[in-house]
Amino acid sequence: MRRFELDPRLAADTTTVGTLGLCTLLLMNDRRWPWLILVPQRSDVTEIHDLTPLDQTMLTFETSLTAKALQTFTGAEKINVGALGNRVRMLHVHVVARRTGDANWPGPVWGFGEAEPYEAETLDKLRNDLVQAVLSG
Amino acid sequence: MRRFELDPRLAADTTTVGTLGLCTLLLMNDRRWPWLILVPQRSDVTEIHDLTPLDQTMLTFETSLTAKALQTFTGAEKINVGALGNRVRMLHVHVVARRTGDANWPGPVWGFGEAEPYEAETLDKLRNDLVQAVLSG
Repeated sequence: MRRFELDPRLAADTTTVGTLGLCTLLLMNDRRWPWLILVPQRSDVTEIHDLTPLDQTMLTFETSLTAKALQTFTGAEKINVGALGNRVRMLHVHVVARRTGDANWPGPVWGFGEAEPYEAETLDKLRNDLVQAVLSG
Repeated sequence: MRRFELDPRLAADTTTVGTLGLCTLLLMNDRRWPWLILVPQRSDVTEIHDLTPLDQTMLTFETSLTAKALQTFTGAEKINVGALGNRVRMLHVHVVARRTGDANWPGPVWGFGEAEPYEAETLDKLRNDLVQAVLSG
């Protein structure tokens, strides 16, 4: 196993919220949707089913923790969870807060339009709020 | 908990492959992609994080089993896994075989174009092959 280093495309699109037991937790810099990404610190794995059973269980736990906190924090109508990796092969799991009337409701967030970055202060505040909501929740 | 009955929209778009410990396994009738759907037999739950911890672990196990078998069977370049539920609220997990050049590569399968049904014989053969690949794998 190589030392873990975040894929540069994921790094460019996000800001880091923190680190869980298995995953680095990222916030997408796209104000169209509250959108978190979990990245298991396993550089050599691209499919969830290729993680060890223990890592799979950890990922499930951390994904649920994140999803539940995001739904509570945002009051979202529905949480969308997805692991695609067609463009960026480093294994990552999207957790996105959705509601009726959002930018592409009820379609998916992936591949839709262009990201709309937050203002710096808003991004910073949201990240801090999410640290509280997810990591201290 | 109510008696489990499959959502009629899921039933209309799919054929049943079989039953795992927690989930009913469905095959989407769309020949653009080899596309399976796991439906936990829990009618009252719409989010993965609202399943019990045991059910979450079962779902992870059954999703991985399905994803691994589908990738081996199809030789797919990438497996896409997603739980959206924006249209159909009954909890269901998509497991889709993807490859460079497929109908919407590298975009998502959800919300893209119209399903292209298999011919009846092809669907029947594929379902039987998947029973072997997933349930006897």
